[in-house]
Amino acid sequence: MITVVLLGAGNVAQHLYTAFRNQELTKVVQCYNRKGIPIHKNQKKDTVTSDLSNLKEADLYILAISDDAIEEVSRALPFQNRLVVHTSGSVPMDAINDKNFRGVFYPLQTFSATKEVNFTNIPFCIEAESEKDETILKSLASQLSKKIYDINSDQRNVLHVAAVFVNNFTNHMFSLGNDICKENEVPFEILHPLIQETAKKIIEIEPDNAQTGPAIRNDIKTIDRHIDILKNESQKNIYKILTKAIQSKYGKEL
Amino acid sequence: MITVVLLGAGNVAQHLYTAFRNQELTKVVQCYNRKGIPIHKNQKKDTVTSDLSNLKEADLYILAISDDAIEEVSRALPFQNRLVVHTSGSVPMDAINDKNFRGVFYPLQTFSATKEVNFTNIPFCIEAESEKDETILKSLASQLSKKIYDINSDQRNVLHVAAVFVNNFTNHMFSLGNDICKENEVPFEILHPLIQETAKKIIEIEPDNAQTGPAIRNDIKTIDRHIDILKNESQKNIYKILTKAIQSKYGKEL
Repeated sequence: MITVVLLGAGNVAQHLYTAFRNQELTKVVQCYNRKGIPIHKNQKKDTVTSDLSNLKEADLYILAISDDAIEEVSRALPFQNRLVVHTSGSVPMDAINDKNFRGVFYPLQTFSATKEVNFTNIPFCIEAESEKDETILKSLASQLSKKIYDINSDQRNVLHVAAVFVNNFTNHMFSLGNDICKENEVPFEILHPLIQETAKKIIEIEPDNAQTGPAIRNDIKTIDRHIDILKNESQKNIYKILTKAIQSKYGKEL
Repeated sequence: MITVVLLGAGNVAQHLYTAFRNQELTKVVQCYNRKGIPIHKNQKKDTVTSDLSNLKEADLYILAISDDAIEEVSRALPFQNRLVVHTSGSVPMDAINDKNFRGVFYPLQTFSATKEVNFTNIPFCIEAESEKDETILKSLASQLSKKIYDINSDQRNVLHVAAVFVNNFTNHMFSLGNDICKENEVPFEILHPLIQETAKKIIEIEPDNAQTGPAIRNDIKTIDRHIDILKNESQKNIYKILTKAIQSKYGKEL
Protein backbone atom coordinates (compact mmCIF):
# COMPACT_ATOMS: atom_id res chain seq x y z
CA MET A 1 0.00 0.00 0.00
CA ILE A 2 1.37 3.40 -1.03
CA THR A 3 -0.05 6.37 0.89
CA VAL A 4 -0.30 9.65 -0.98
CA VAL A 5 -0.98 13.28 -0.13
CA LEU A 6 -2.21 15.11 -3.25
CA LEU A 7 -1.67 18.87 -3.48
CA GLY A 8 -3.61 20.94 -6.03
CA ALA A 9 -7.17 21.32 -7.28
CA GLY A 10 -6.75 21.60 -11.06
CA ASN A 11 -7.48 19.10 -13.85
CA VAL A 12 -4.44 16.89 -13.19
CA ALA A 13 -5.11 16.71 -9.42
CA GLN A 14 -8.78 15.89 -9.99
CA HIS A 15 -8.14 13.19 -12.60
CA LEU A 16 -5.35 11.59 -10.54
CA TYR A 17 -7.57 11.59 -7.44
CA THR A 18 -10.40 9.91 -9.35
CA ALA A 19 -8.02 7.31 -10.78
CA PHE A 20 -6.44 6.52 -7.39
CA ARG A 21 -9.87 6.09 -5.74
CA ASN A 22 -10.30 2.89 -7.75
CA GLN A 23 -6.92 1.43 -6.75
CA GLU A 24 -6.51 -1.00 -3.88
CA LEU A 25 -2.76 -0.59 -3.58
CA THR A 26 -2.78 3.19 -3.27
CA LYS A 27 -4.58 5.40 -0.78
CA VAL A 28 -4.85 9.17 -1.08
CA VAL A 29 -4.91 9.96 2.63
CA GLN A 30 -5.30 13.73 2.23
CA CYS A 31 -5.70 16.53 -0.29
CA TYR A 32 -4.43 20.08 0.01
CA ASN A 33 -5.58 23.16 -1.84
CA ARG A 34 -5.70 26.84 -0.93
CA LYS A 35 -9.49 26.89 -0.52
CA GLY A 36 -9.63 23.57 1.33
CA ILE A 37 -12.39 22.25 -0.94
CA PRO A 38 -13.01 18.61 -1.95
CA ILE A 39 -11.78 17.85 -5.48
CA HIS A 40 -14.21 14.96 -6.04
CA LYS A 41 -17.93 14.84 -5.36
CA ASN A 42 -17.55 11.84 -3.03
CA GLN A 43 -14.50 13.11 -1.14
CA LYS A 44 -14.98 13.56 2.62
CA LYS A 45 -14.39 17.11 3.83
CA ASP A 46 -12.10 16.04 6.68
CA THR A 47 -9.60 14.62 4.17
CA VAL A 48 -9.01 18.09 2.70
CA THR A 49 -6.90 20.85 4.21
CA SER A 50 -5.92 24.38 3.23
CA ASP A 51 -3.13 24.47 5.82
CA LEU A 52 0.29 23.05 4.91
CA SER A 53 1.10 22.64 8.61
CA ASN A 54 -1.75 20.11 8.88
CA LEU A 55 -0.34 17.76 6.23
CA LYS A 56 -0.42 14.09 7.24
CA GLU A 57 2.49 11.70 6.97
CA ALA A 58 2.55 9.74 3.70
CA ASP A 59 4.90 7.77 1.43
CA LEU A 60 4.54 10.34 -1.32
CA TYR A 61 3.51 13.98 -1.79
CA ILE A 62 2.31 14.83 -5.30
CA LEU A 63 2.43 18.53 -6.25
CA ALA A 64 -0.22 18.66 -9.01
CA ILE A 65 -0.08 22.46 -8.98
CA SER A 66 0.78 25.19 -11.47
CA ASP A 67 4.37 25.29 -12.75
CA ASP A 68 5.08 28.62 -11.06
CA ALA A 69 3.96 27.40 -7.62
CA ILE A 70 6.18 24.29 -7.43
CA GLU A 71 9.26 26.02 -6.01
CA GLU A 72 7.34 28.02 -3.39
CA VAL A 73 5.00 25.27 -2.18
CA SER A 74 7.83 22.72 -1.98
CA ARG A 75 9.82 25.20 0.12
CA ALA A 76 6.86 25.76 2.44
CA LEU A 77 6.38 22.05 3.20
CA PRO A 78 6.87 21.64 6.99
CA PHE A 79 8.91 18.41 6.83
CA GLN A 80 12.04 16.94 5.28
CA ASN A 81 13.49 13.68 3.90
CA ARG A 82 10.20 12.58 2.41
CA LEU A 83 9.44 11.87 -1.28
CA VAL A 84 7.97 14.94 -3.04
CA VAL A 85 7.19 14.91 -6.77
CA HIS A 86 5.62 17.27 -9.28
CA THR A 87 3.50 16.44 -12.34
CA SER A 88 4.78 19.09 -14.76
CA GLY A 89 6.15 18.56 -18.25
CA SER A 90 8.31 21.64 -18.25
CA VAL A 91 9.65 22.21 -14.72
CA PRO A 92 13.00 20.58 -13.84
CA MET A 93 13.04 18.10 -10.95
CA ASP A 94 15.39 20.33 -8.96
CA ALA A 95 12.82 23.13 -8.79
CA ILE A 96 11.52 21.10 -5.85
CA ASN A 97 13.19 22.21 -2.60
CA ASP A 98 16.08 19.89 -1.72
CA LYS A 99 15.13 19.38 1.90
CA ASN A 100 13.02 16.49 0.60
CA PHE A 101 13.73 13.60 -1.81
CA ARG A 102 12.65 14.77 -5.22
CA GLY A 103 11.00 13.23 -8.25
CA VAL A 104 8.70 13.74 -11.22
CA PHE A 105 5.45 11.91 -11.99
CA TYR A 106 4.35 13.40 -15.32
CA PRO A 107 1.35 11.99 -17.20
CA LEU A 108 1.83 13.16 -20.80
CA GLN A 109 -1.69 14.01 -21.92
CA THR A 110 -3.99 16.98 -22.44
CA PHE A 111 -6.60 17.03 -19.67
CA SER A 112 -9.89 18.88 -19.68
CA ALA A 113 -12.15 19.22 -16.68
CA THR A 114 -15.26 17.81 -18.31
CA LYS A 115 -13.87 14.73 -20.03
CA GLU A 116 -13.28 11.55 -18.03
CA VAL A 117 -9.75 10.18 -18.32
CA ASN A 118 -8.72 6.59 -18.87
CA PHE A 119 -5.08 6.48 -17.80
CA THR A 120 -4.39 2.99 -19.24
CA ASN A 121 -2.69 4.28 -22.38
CA ILE A 122 -1.36 7.56 -21.02
CA PRO A 123 2.46 7.56 -20.82
CA PHE A 124 3.91 8.34 -17.40
CA CYS A 125 7.33 9.99 -17.47
CA ILE A 126 9.19 9.14 -14.25
CA GLU A 127 12.26 10.73 -12.72
CA ALA A 128 13.72 10.37 -9.21
CA GLU A 129 16.95 10.98 -7.30
CA SER A 130 17.33 7.39 -6.09
CA GLU A 131 16.50 3.96 -7.49
CA LYS A 132 14.35 3.28 -4.45
CA ASP A 133 12.17 6.32 -5.13
CA GLU A 134 12.06 5.51 -8.84
CA THR A 135 10.70 2.07 -7.96
CA ILE A 136 7.97 3.60 -5.79
CA LEU A 137 6.93 6.00 -8.58
CA LYS A 138 6.95 3.26 -11.21
CA SER A 139 4.91 0.98 -8.99
CA LEU A 140 2.38 3.78 -8.52
CA ALA A 141 2.27 4.60 -12.26
CA SER A 142 1.89 0.93 -13.19
CA GLN A 143 -1.37 0.79 -11.23
CA LEU A 144 -2.81 3.36 -13.63
CA SER A 145 -1.01 2.86 -16.94
CA LYS A 146 0.75 0.30 -19.12
CA LYS A 147 3.18 2.91 -20.45
CA ILE A 148 5.98 3.98 -18.15
CA TYR A 149 9.15 5.76 -19.27
CA ASP A 150 12.38 6.85 -17.52
CA ILE A 151 12.69 10.45 -18.65
CA ASN A 152 15.15 12.92 -17.18
CA SER A 153 14.51 16.67 -16.95
CA ASP A 154 16.32 17.47 -20.23
CA GLN A 155 14.39 14.81 -22.12
CA ARG A 156 11.13 16.01 -20.58
CA ASN A 157 11.88 19.52 -21.86
CA VAL A 158 12.35 18.13 -25.36
CA LEU A 159 9.09 16.17 -25.09
CA HIS A 160 7.32 19.32 -23.97
CA VAL A 161 8.49 21.30 -27.01
CA ALA A 162 7.56 18.42 -29.32
CA ALA A 163 4.14 18.28 -27.60
CA VAL A 164 3.60 21.96 -28.44
CA PHE A 165 4.00 21.04 -32.12
CA VAL A 166 1.85 17.88 -32.13
CA ASN A 167 -0.85 19.20 -29.79
CA ASN A 168 -1.02 23.03 -29.56
CA PHE A 169 0.05 23.82 -33.12
CA THR A 170 -1.95 20.91 -34.56
CA ASN A 171 -5.02 22.23 -32.79
CA HIS A 172 -4.32 25.62 -34.35
CA MET A 173 -4.35 23.93 -37.79
CA PHE A 174 -7.80 22.50 -36.90
CA SER A 175 -8.86 25.96 -35.77
CA LEU A 176 -7.77 27.53 -39.08
CA GLY A 177 -9.53 24.75 -41.02
CA ASN A 178 -12.66 25.43 -38.99
CA ASP A 179 -12.45 29.19 -39.71
CA ILE A 180 -12.02 28.61 -43.45
CA CYS A 181 -15.09 26.33 -43.50
CA LYS A 182 -17.20 28.74 -41.42
CA GLU A 183 -16.25 31.75 -43.56
CA ASN A 184 -17.51 29.83 -46.59
CA GLU A 185 -20.51 28.09 -45.01
CA VAL A 186 -19.20 24.58 -45.41
CA PRO A 187 -19.71 22.24 -42.42
CA PHE A 188 -16.36 21.55 -40.70
CA GLU A 189 -17.64 18.13 -39.56
CA ILE A 190 -17.01 16.84 -43.12
CA LEU A 191 -13.31 17.02 -42.18
CA HIS A 192 -13.65 15.11 -38.88
CA PRO A 193 -12.94 11.66 -40.39
CA LEU A 194 -9.90 13.01 -42.25
CA ILE A 195 -8.56 14.45 -38.98
CA GLN A 196 -9.00 11.10 -37.19
CA GLU A 197 -7.26 9.24 -40.03
CA THR A 198 -4.39 11.75 -40.10
CA ALA A 199 -3.76 11.03 -36.41
CA LYS A 200 -4.20 7.25 -36.71
CA LYS A 201 -1.74 6.99 -39.60
CA ILE A 202 1.07 8.21 -37.33
CA ILE A 203 0.92 5.04 -35.23
CA GLU A 204 1.72 2.91 -38.28
CA ILE A 205 3.76 5.17 -40.56
CA GLU A 206 6.60 7.64 -39.87
CA PRO A 207 5.23 11.18 -40.36
CA ASP A 208 7.77 11.80 -43.15
CA ASN A 209 6.33 8.86 -45.09
CA ALA A 210 2.75 9.99 -44.48
CA GLN A 211 3.27 13.48 -45.95
CA THR A 212 0.93 14.15 -48.88
CA GLY A 213 -0.61 17.22 -50.52
CA PRO A 214 0.19 19.97 -53.03
CA ALA A 215 3.34 21.16 -51.18
CA ILE A 216 5.25 17.86 -51.34
CA ARG A 217 3.96 17.22 -54.90
CA ASN A 218 5.11 20.73 -55.80
CA ASP A 219 1.70 21.26 -57.42
CA ILE A 220 2.11 25.00 -58.03
CA LYS A 221 -1.25 25.42 -59.79
CA THR A 222 -3.15 24.11 -56.75
CA ILE A 223 -0.96 26.04 -54.29
CA ASP A 224 -1.64 29.33 -56.12
CA ARG A 225 -5.37 28.59 -56.31
CA HIS A 226 -5.48 27.82 -52.58
CA ILE A 227 -3.70 31.05 -51.63
CA ASP A 228 -6.21 32.86 -53.81
CA ILE A 229 -9.20 31.25 -52.07
CA LEU A 230 -7.94 32.27 -48.61
CA LYS A 231 -9.28 35.71 -47.73
CA ASN A 232 -7.43 36.24 -44.47
CA GLU A 233 -3.81 37.51 -44.64
CA SER A 234 -2.72 35.49 -41.60
CA GLN A 235 -4.12 32.28 -43.17
CA LYS A 236 -2.35 33.07 -46.47
CA ASN A 237 0.89 33.67 -44.61
CA ILE A 238 0.76 30.40 -42.66
CA TYR A 239 -0.19 28.50 -45.83
CA LYS A 240 2.87 29.91 -47.64
CA ILE A 241 5.31 29.36 -44.77
CA LEU A 242 4.28 25.76 -44.11
CA THR A 243 4.20 24.95 -47.82
CA LYS A 244 7.74 26.29 -48.11
CA ALA A 245 8.83 24.36 -44.99
CA ILE A 246 7.46 21.09 -46.42
CA GLN A 247 9.14 21.74 -49.78
CA SER A 248 12.49 22.58 -48.16
CA LYS A 249 12.31 19.51 -45.94
CA TYR A 250 11.67 17.10 -48.79
CA GLY A 251 14.02 18.83 -51.22
CA LYS A 252 11.49 20.25 -53.69
CA GLU A 253 12.59 23.19 -55.78
CA LEU A 254 10.65 26.39 -55.11
CA MET B 1 -28.44 -2.30 -60.08
CA ILE B 2 -26.04 0.47 -61.09
CA THR B 3 -23.41 -0.51 -63.67
CA VAL B 4 -20.06 1.27 -63.44
CA VAL B 5 -16.95 1.61 -65.59
CA LEU B 6 -14.00 2.63 -63.41
CA LEU B 7 -11.11 4.50 -65.02
CA GLY B 8 -7.74 4.77 -63.25
CA ALA B 9 -5.32 2.52 -61.37
CA GLY B 10 -4.28 4.63 -58.36
CA ASN B 11 -5.22 4.40 -54.69
CA VAL B 12 -8.74 5.82 -55.09
CA ALA B 13 -9.56 3.55 -58.05
CA GLN B 14 -8.27 0.48 -56.20
CA HIS B 15 -10.10 1.21 -52.96
CA LEU B 16 -13.37 2.02 -54.76
CA TYR B 17 -13.10 -1.18 -56.81
CA THR B 18 -12.55 -3.26 -53.67
CA ALA B 19 -15.51 -1.57 -51.95
CA PHE B 20 -17.87 -2.06 -54.93
CA ARG B 21 -16.95 -5.75 -55.22
CA ASN B 22 -18.84 -6.35 -51.97
CA GLN B 23 -22.00 -4.52 -53.09
CA GLU B 24 -24.99 -6.32 -54.59
CA LEU B 25 -26.60 -3.20 -56.03
CA THR B 26 -23.55 -2.04 -57.97
CA LYS B 27 -21.50 -3.84 -60.57
CA VAL B 28 -18.18 -2.62 -61.92
CA VAL B 29 -18.49 -4.03 -65.45
CA GLN B 30 -15.09 -2.84 -66.64
CA CYS B 31 -11.89 -1.07 -65.62
CA TYR B 32 -9.69 1.10 -67.80
CA ASN B 33 -6.08 2.07 -67.27
CA ARG B 34 -3.24 2.86 -69.66
CA LYS B 35 -1.42 -0.43 -68.99
CA GLY B 36 -4.60 -2.53 -69.07
CA ILE B 37 -3.67 -4.27 -65.79
CA PRO B 38 -6.10 -5.63 -63.15
CA ILE B 39 -6.37 -3.31 -60.13
CA HIS B 40 -7.41 -6.09 -57.72
CA LYS B 41 -5.83 -9.50 -57.24
CA ASN B 42 -9.14 -11.27 -58.01
CA GLN B 43 -10.11 -9.16 -61.00
CA LYS B 44 -10.52 -11.05 -64.27
CA LYS B 45 -8.23 -9.84 -67.06
CA ASP B 46 -11.03 -9.59 -69.64
CA THR B 47 -12.76 -6.91 -67.54
CA VAL B 48 -9.78 -4.57 -67.98
CA THR B 49 -8.95 -2.54 -71.07
CA SER B 50 -6.28 -0.04 -72.06
CA ASP B 51 -8.27 1.16 -75.05
CA LEU B 52 -10.91 3.86 -74.58
CA SER B 53 -12.67 2.76 -77.78
CA ASN B 54 -13.41 -0.60 -76.12
CA LEU B 55 -15.32 0.92 -73.19
CA LYS B 56 -18.57 -0.90 -72.42
CA GLU B 57 -21.92 0.78 -71.92
CA ALA B 58 -22.69 1.59 -68.28
CA ASP B 59 -24.85 3.84 -66.09
CA LEU B 60 -21.82 5.66 -64.79
CA TYR B 61 -18.17 6.30 -65.72
CA ILE B 62 -15.93 7.16 -62.75
CA LEU B 63 -12.68 8.99 -63.60
CA ALA B 64 -10.50 8.09 -60.59
CA ILE B 65 -7.45 9.52 -62.33
CA SER B 66 -4.97 12.30 -61.64
CA ASP B 67 -6.32 15.88 -61.56
CA ASP B 68 -4.39 16.88 -64.66
CA ALA B 69 -5.76 14.00 -66.77
CA ILE B 70 -9.48 14.64 -66.15
CA GLU B 71 -9.96 17.15 -68.96
CA GLU B 72 -8.07 15.13 -71.55
CA VAL B 73 -9.50 11.69 -70.76
CA SER B 74 -13.06 13.04 -70.56
CA ARG B 75 -12.57 14.63 -74.00
CA ALA B 76 -11.27 11.34 -75.42
CA LEU B 77 -14.31 9.30 -74.33
CA PRO B 78 -15.92 7.88 -77.52
CA PHE B 79 -19.55 8.50 -76.49
CA GLN B 80 -21.88 11.25 -75.36
CA ASN B 81 -24.92 11.91 -73.14
CA ARG B 82 -23.77 9.47 -70.47
CA LEU B 83 -22.99 10.22 -66.83
CA VAL B 84 -19.27 10.87 -66.26
CA VAL B 85 -17.89 11.88 -62.84
CA HIS B 86 -14.49 12.52 -61.32
CA THR B 87 -13.28 11.84 -57.76
CA SER B 88 -11.10 14.90 -57.21
CA GLY B 89 -11.26 17.39 -54.35
CA SER B 90 -9.81 20.27 -56.30
CA VAL B 91 -10.97 20.01 -59.93
CA PRO B 92 -14.23 21.79 -60.87
CA MET B 93 -17.06 19.68 -62.27
CA ASP B 94 -16.93 21.52 -65.59
CA ALA B 95 -13.39 20.33 -66.26
CA ILE B 96 -15.19 17.23 -67.55
CA ASN B 97 -15.98 17.55 -71.26
CA ASP B 98 -19.57 18.72 -71.77
CA LYS B 99 -20.49 16.16 -74.40
CA ASN B 100 -21.48 13.97 -71.43
CA PHE B 101 -23.57 14.61 -68.29
CA ARG B 102 -21.15 15.66 -65.59
CA GLY B 103 -20.78 15.07 -61.88
CA VAL B 104 -18.42 14.67 -58.92
CA PHE B 105 -18.09 11.68 -56.60
CA TYR B 106 -15.42 12.78 -54.10
CA PRO B 107 -14.58 10.64 -51.06
CA LEU B 108 -12.90 13.06 -48.63
CA GLN B 109 -10.15 10.95 -47.10
CA THR B 110 -6.42 10.33 -47.33
CA PHE B 111 -5.81 6.98 -49.02
CA SER B 112 -2.65 4.94 -48.93
CA ALA B 113 -2.04 1.87 -51.03
CA THR B 114 -1.20 -0.48 -48.17
CA LYS B 115 -3.98 0.35 -45.72
CA GLU B 116 -7.43 -1.19 -46.19
CA VAL B 117 -10.24 1.37 -46.28
CA ASN B 118 -13.58 1.19 -44.52
CA PHE B 119 -15.78 3.68 -46.37
CA THR B 120 -18.60 3.63 -43.79
CA ASN B 121 -17.54 6.89 -42.13
CA ILE B 122 -15.88 8.54 -45.10
CA PRO B 123 -17.82 11.60 -46.31
CA PHE B 124 -18.82 11.56 -49.97
CA CYS B 125 -19.17 14.99 -51.58
CA ILE B 126 -21.63 14.79 -54.43
CA GLU B 127 -22.27 17.22 -57.29
CA ALA B 128 -24.24 16.75 -60.52
CA GLU B 129 -25.86 18.79 -63.31
CA SER B 130 -29.32 17.29 -62.85
CA GLU B 131 -31.35 16.00 -59.93
CA LYS B 132 -31.67 12.63 -61.62
CA ASP B 133 -27.90 12.23 -61.80
CA GLU B 134 -27.51 13.49 -58.26
CA THR B 135 -29.91 10.76 -57.12
CA ILE B 136 -27.86 8.09 -58.91
CA LEU B 137 -24.61 9.32 -57.31
CA LYS B 138 -26.18 9.53 -53.85
CA SER B 139 -27.65 6.07 -54.19
CA LEU B 140 -24.20 4.75 -55.14
CA ALA B 141 -22.47 6.60 -52.28
CA SER B 142 -25.05 5.40 -49.76
CA GLN B 143 -24.08 1.80 -50.50
CA LEU B 144 -20.59 2.58 -49.19
CA SER B 145 -21.01 5.35 -46.62
CA LYS B 146 -23.40 6.86 -44.09
CA LYS B 147 -22.11 10.38 -44.76
CA ILE B 148 -23.25 12.06 -47.96
CA TYR B 149 -23.07 15.79 -48.65
CA ASP B 150 -24.24 18.06 -51.49
CA ILE B 151 -21.13 20.09 -52.21
CA ASN B 152 -20.71 22.35 -55.23
CA SER B 153 -17.36 23.04 -56.90
CA ASP B 154 -16.72 26.27 -54.94
CA GLN B 155 -17.44 24.58 -51.62
CA ARG B 156 -15.26 21.63 -52.58
CA ASN B 157 -12.41 24.05 -53.25
CA VAL B 158 -12.84 25.49 -49.77
CA LEU B 159 -12.90 22.00 -48.25
CA HIS B 160 -9.74 21.16 -50.12
CA VAL B 161 -7.87 24.17 -48.70
CA ALA B 162 -9.16 23.40 -45.20
CA ALA B 163 -8.04 19.79 -45.70
CA VAL B 164 -4.51 21.00 -46.46
CA PHE B 165 -4.48 22.63 -43.01
CA VAL B 166 -6.00 19.75 -41.02
CA ASN B 167 -4.21 16.96 -42.89
CA ASN B 168 -1.03 18.06 -44.74
CA PHE B 169 0.05 20.80 -42.33
CA THR B 170 -0.96 18.77 -39.28
CA ASN B 171 1.17 15.92 -40.55
CA HIS B 172 4.04 18.38 -40.89
CA MET B 173 3.58 19.28 -37.20
CA PHE B 174 3.89 15.55 -36.40
CA SER B 175 6.96 15.39 -38.61
CA LEU B 176 8.61 18.32 -36.77
CA GLY B 177 7.72 16.75 -33.40
CA ASN B 178 9.29 13.49 -34.60
CA ASP B 179 12.47 15.32 -35.71
CA ILE B 180 12.79 17.12 -32.36
CA CYS B 181 12.46 13.81 -30.49
CA LYS B 182 14.93 12.01 -32.77
CA GLU B 183 17.51 14.80 -32.52
CA ASN B 184 17.38 14.44 -28.74
CA GLU B 185 17.02 10.65 -28.53
CA VAL B 186 13.58 10.65 -26.97
CA PRO B 187 11.08 8.08 -28.35
CA PHE B 188 8.39 9.83 -30.42
CA GLU B 189 5.91 7.06 -29.53
CA ILE B 190 5.49 8.70 -26.09
CA LEU B 191 3.55 11.39 -27.98
CA HIS B 192 1.24 8.98 -29.85
CA PRO B 193 -1.56 9.00 -27.23
CA LEU B 194 -1.44 12.82 -27.05
CA ILE B 195 -1.81 12.99 -30.84
CA GLN B 196 -4.83 10.65 -30.78
CA GLU B 197 -6.44 12.68 -27.99
CA THR B 198 -5.79 15.98 -29.82
CA ALA B 199 -7.70 14.61 -32.82
CA LYS B 200 -10.51 13.04 -30.76
CA LYS B 201 -11.18 16.26 -28.85
CA ILE B 202 -12.19 18.00 -32.09
CA ILE B 203 -15.28 15.82 -32.44
CA GLU B 204 -16.61 17.07 -29.10
CA ILE B 205 -15.15 20.56 -28.71
CA GLU B 206 -14.73 23.48 -31.16
CA PRO B 207 -10.99 23.82 -31.92
CA ASP B 208 -10.99 27.36 -30.50
CA ASN B 209 -12.17 26.00 -27.16
CA ALA B 210 -9.63 23.18 -27.22
CA GLN B 211 -6.61 25.48 -27.66
CA THR B 212 -4.10 25.09 -24.81
CA GLY B 213 -0.35 25.64 -24.35
CA PRO B 214 2.18 28.37 -23.62
CA ALA B 215 1.11 30.57 -26.58
CA ILE B 216 -2.52 31.06 -25.51
CA ARG B 217 -1.45 31.33 -21.84
CA ASN B 218 1.11 33.94 -22.92
CA ASP B 219 3.69 32.01 -20.86
CA ILE B 220 6.74 33.95 -22.10
CA LYS B 221 9.23 32.11 -19.87
CA THR B 222 8.27 28.74 -21.38
CA ILE B 223 8.10 30.12 -24.95
CA ASP B 224 11.65 31.53 -24.65
CA ARG B 225 12.95 28.28 -23.14
CA HIS B 226 11.36 26.26 -25.97
CA ILE B 227 12.87 28.46 -28.69
CA ASP B 228 16.20 28.00 -26.94
CA ILE B 229 15.89 24.19 -26.91
CA LEU B 230 15.16 24.06 -30.67
CA LYS B 231 18.44 23.79 -32.59
CA ASN B 232 17.08 24.06 -36.12
CA GLU B 233 16.37 27.57 -37.50
CA SER B 234 13.34 26.40 -39.49
CA GLN B 235 11.81 24.81 -36.36
CA LYS B 236 12.47 28.00 -34.35
CA ASN B 237 10.84 30.07 -37.08
CA ILE B 238 7.69 27.93 -37.27
CA TYR B 239 7.48 27.90 -33.46
CA LYS B 240 7.60 31.71 -33.37
CA ILE B 241 5.13 32.26 -36.24
CA LEU B 242 2.51 29.82 -34.92
CA THR B 243 2.90 31.14 -31.36
CA LYS B 244 2.32 34.65 -32.67
CA ALA B 245 -0.67 33.50 -34.77
CA ILE B 246 -2.29 31.84 -31.73
CA GLN B 247 -1.68 34.94 -29.60
CA SER B 248 -3.10 37.28 -32.25
CA LYS B 249 -6.14 35.06 -32.76
CA TYR B 250 -7.04 34.95 -29.06
CA GLY B 251 -6.12 38.57 -28.36
CA LYS B 252 -3.02 38.07 -26.21
CA GLU B 253 -0.58 40.96 -25.99
CA LEU B 254 2.83 40.23 -27.51
